[in-house]
Amino acid sequence: MAEQDLHRQHISGQFNQELETVTAHMLEMGGVVEKQLLAAMMALLELDSGEAQAVMESDQAINAMEVDINDECFRILARRQPAAGDLRLVLAISKVIIDLERIGDESSRIARQAIALSEQAEEDPARPWTQKLGAIVIEMLRGALDAFARREAPAAAAIARGDEEIDANMAGAMAVLADTMRSDPEAVEACITTMWALRSLERIGDHARNIAEYVIYVVEGVDVRHAAREAVLDLLPEHSSPDV
Amino acid sequence: MAEQDLHRQHISGQFNQELETVTAHMLEMGGVVEKQLLAAMMALLELDSGEAQAVMESDQAINAMEVDINDECFRILARRQPAAGDLRLVLAISKVIIDLERIGDESSRIARQAIALSEQAEEDPARPWTQKLGAIVIEMLRGALDAFARREAPAAAAIARGDEEIDANMAGAMAVLADTMRSDPEAVEACITTMWALRSLERIGDHARNIAEYVIYVVEGVDVRHAAREAVLDLLPEHSSPDV
Repeated sequence: MAEQDLHRQHISGQFNQELETVTAHMLEMGGVVEKQLLAAMMALLELDSGEAQAVMESDQAINAMEVDINDECFRILARRQPAAGDLRLVLAISKVIIDLERIGDESSRIARQAIALSEQAEEDPARPWTQKLGAIVIEMLRGALDAFARREAPAAAAIARGDEEIDANMAGAMAVLADTMRSDPEAVEACITTMWALRSLERIGDHARNIAEYVIYVVEGVDVRHAAREAVLDLLPEHSSPDV
Repeated sequence: MAEQDLHRQHISGQFNQELETVTAHMLEMGGVVEKQLLAAMMALLELDSGEAQAVMESDQAINAMEVDINDECFRILARRQPAAGDLRLVLAISKVIIDLERIGDESSRIARQAIALSEQAEEDPARPWTQKLGAIVIEMLRGALDAFARREAPAAAAIARGDEEIDANMAGAMAVLADTMRSDPEAVEACITTMWALRSLERIGDHARNIAEYVIYVVEGVDVRHAAREAVLDLLPEHSSPDV
């Protein structure tokens, strides 16, 4: 092999290594965020203010990861000038980490509500709904990160359309909270606190869906973020519903 | 001038033109989003469901602008392989438009709450606070876009630290709403609706702050997003408070 070819191969090998490394860092950040969200849910459901405090303190580490990975993406773009597919990957990562960071923010907010509820010495009046909603969004986040790791567009597409379950559970929770507030003025404070936590869970679902959409962008090269539902369905195996 | 130099100058002129064009498109999108937010606030305060409907319908146009500008950024990165400062500009634009698009989403949510309130035939019980909060975030968004247009880091830094006023007005509004719900079970529905609208305004403030932080990133080349307050203050003229 000519020396020049060897050199080129070396450079290209290094570049692939950099892409793998930045992807690994993003997935690692995703793992930390997932853990933080799980801890925030535990704190909320168990009214565990110690756990909640730990969640809020872990937010800084997540922010730092985001800044570092963003720098990594910038350096790759500046030095390697990647084309088409690789460029899409780096841009997607630089956006996924923003969603991850915001999921971290929302988890901190949930932790803050857990502390407020424990101070109000009240249990979440819509506990079963909250628990279900938490389980759904944790599953969405995990699924979106798995789909990214495995570059699976169909799995990502299934997540990208998973908002109905969230809407149904939000509506269920809100009906309970409204009833509680109407019948028991003393419970108003705790209901408001719970509403903010539910809203955060809903937003985490939005962010998980964004991440799933970036997976489709990386794999398929199409931007499905505002596409009609049909376009997303086309990516599902045999156009079947993932719920069947 | 040698032919090669002329060619190079021509390419570089074209490139600058592309950067100016994509910046103009982003600012144009910002203008549309600003108008939509203003209309959403009018709809909420005047319980104007026709105006609210128009706001919700305009969301698709904003989504389309985001997709187009994102494509524009991708093409510039793929073909021009910009270095340092230009790369920062393109990356910042590709992120600013995400925040703008989400402000559009929140404005649509506010419009939906305006329709709900008008159906509940209730005025917002915390109207003066809502109005104030709306005015603050509209001003923040306008200021952030102006700072981007003029590349003014100090103005952006002043916006990036403008969360105290939002927190104070949110707290004021929430106290009124909690009192109202405790004393009047019939008003619970309208209070919940108002809470969601207030939450959207708060989030719009967050997004405006993100945009301001990207301005600092473009102008100063530093990522201040999670920096200590002091680091942002350092960018202010003579370290003075913008409120004085």
